[in-house]
Amino acid sequence: MANRIVVALGGNALQENPKDISAKAQLKTAKKTARSIVDLIEEGHEVVIVHGNGPQVGQIVSVYEKALDIPNMPFPECGAMSQGYIGYHLQQTIREEMIKRGIYKEITAMITQVVVSNNDSAFTKPSKPVGSFFTEEEAIKLEKLYGYTMKEDAGRGWRRVVPSPEPIDIVESQTLKVLVDSNFVVITAGGGGIPVVKRNDGNLEGVSAVIDKDFAAELVGEIIDADMLIILTAVEKVCIDFNKSTEKGLDMITIEEAERYIEEGQFAPGSMLPKVKAAVKFVKSKKGRKAIITSLDKAKECIIGEIGTKIQNDF
Amino acid sequence: MANRIVVALGGNALQENPKDISAKAQLKTAKKTARSIVDLIEEGHEVVIVHGNGPQVGQIVSVYEKALDIPNMPFPECGAMSQGYIGYHLQQTIREEMIKRGIYKEITAMITQVVVSNNDSAFTKPSKPVGSFFTEEEAIKLEKLYGYTMKEDAGRGWRRVVPSPEPIDIVESQTLKVLVDSNFVVITAGGGGIPVVKRNDGNLEGVSAVIDKDFAAELVGEIIDADMLIILTAVEKVCIDFNKSTEKGLDMITIEEAERYIEEGQFAPGSMLPKVKAAVKFVKSKKGRKAIITSLDKAKECIIGEIGTKIQNDF
Repeated sequence: MANRIVVALGGNALQENPKDISAKAQLKTAKKTARSIVDLIEEGHEVVIVHGNGPQVGQIVSVYEKALDIPNMPFPECGAMSQGYIGYHLQQTIREEMIKRGIYKEITAMITQVVVSNNDSAFTKPSKPVGSFFTEEEAIKLEKLYGYTMKEDAGRGWRRVVPSPEPIDIVESQTLKVLVDSNFVVITAGGGGIPVVKRNDGNLEGVSAVIDKDFAAELVGEIIDADMLIILTAVEKVCIDFNKSTEKGLDMITIEEAERYIEEGQFAPGSMLPKVKAAVKFVKSKKGRKAIITSLDKAKECIIGEIGTKIQNDF
Repeated sequence: MANRIVVALGGNALQENPKDISAKAQLKTAKKTARSIVDLIEEGHEVVIVHGNGPQVGQIVSVYEKALDIPNMPFPECGAMSQGYIGYHLQQTIREEMIKRGIYKEITAMITQVVVSNNDSAFTKPSKPVGSFFTEEEAIKLEKLYGYTMKEDAGRGWRRVVPSPEPIDIVESQTLKVLVDSNFVVITAGGGGIPVVKRNDGNLEGVSAVIDKDFAAELVGEIIDADMLIILTAVEKVCIDFNKSTEKGLDMITIEEAERYIEEGQFAPGSMLPKVKAAVKFVKSKKGRKAIITSLDKAKECIIGEIGTKIQNDF
């Protein structure tokens, strides 16, 4: 049965080797990722893609920081650039993989602004590191020069940190719906979306923040009334007791189980925790909705079989 | 009467002061530009926007060139980034201006690949300068390092030059049509589009080239069956005998007149010539199509009045 699916792509979908951050390497990795995506398209599913942008936006921020004779590029604009960069690669590679399999569909990458709240508590405690490492001296300079918040990062040096507020709305949601209804493959809310706050007059203003791409994917799923949210990452299953002798991969969990595990602190913040939270939120949002967390190369198998961790209302 | 209009935005639509290339300055200029665009939307016209990206893509190329510890970013990817950057600014500012006037419409910026021919003669003579100026020594280094073609630029130093091939097709043309038919304001083929060639197997490959945004706008006009192509630039009218005592602004010209002026060498290559050529091509492409070349602030007046230079089949 064909489903309407939102696929959230993790960092490994665009970068296999963290030491090679070149566009050439990314395009090569994107070709592999395209296979997983087209596996789903080939089965007749409607696919919407939300990708991360951590390394890419970090790189863009870094090159502007280094070019001292060129004005610094604000963070939301860097995010917009990363949407163009990654969207282009995914458009090209997914098209190529579809043609190989005789599928003729258009892939659209849309520049997407995502609304966050000015009152989101995340703004009081910026926590998400972005860009390069600096010395303490440089860090102080950057705080003065650009108003950055800098934090010492586990002995590796100082890094800029930005808040990670929750996504509330997608500004271009009508466009998104029309594109999905028109049967295009849609790439949206790249990097979680360009974060904007809505002022009292209804106008938007970009803010320096990173929206978690899993939460953005969840929101996209609600907006387009998706049946399924598939979060593709580096591991095949969500584990409890991770890295302990009692470690156990989860096959199917109910919302109640997932919430209990979250409360127990089973999942790492900034890693598996937002994925499980986004999955739970999506499943809770409407009866019949399912979420699966699995590895990038198991996209096809996770829908039909027992691979991955399924989160459902009941089984 | 409501028309379907493609608006080509020149460099002055995003940058008023070439000395301030900051994002902040661009956003401010984009707010002014939004007024001209919304003037057209307010009259009920369907508006599709194609913008240039010269200074922006040049800046992105430059920051990557300066960051020697980060792999160089290929030119098509830089173009994709500029589409994100500029698209975001136009989305935000046009939305703001529409809300101010009580118009509620969505604005979509789509990442757009534009097909050029491998056999385009432009590839044998790269002519379009991009990015920073370098010394001869640096130029030789860049040629070796990245395979650039460098040219001495009127005594100001050495600059990278890329070919400017003709646009043949828009890869995401179905998306474009659906978005226009859905009554959204659409931003497409930014910077003339990300230039790609089609290989024999049907797959696309990015190439280092700059597609003229006026020709890209013309192609967009044909694809969406537009009634009108409006090319907004820094001057109110196309002139013959430009900068001579006999200089004369043109109000209305037929295709035959335009072609005669082109042959006489009346228009500067890389400046007014591509605009007039794109206008002529559009008007010739189907009966009833009109083109207007005028200044950014005269968008509204040029449709209803005598301002600007109109190119039509006959009058």
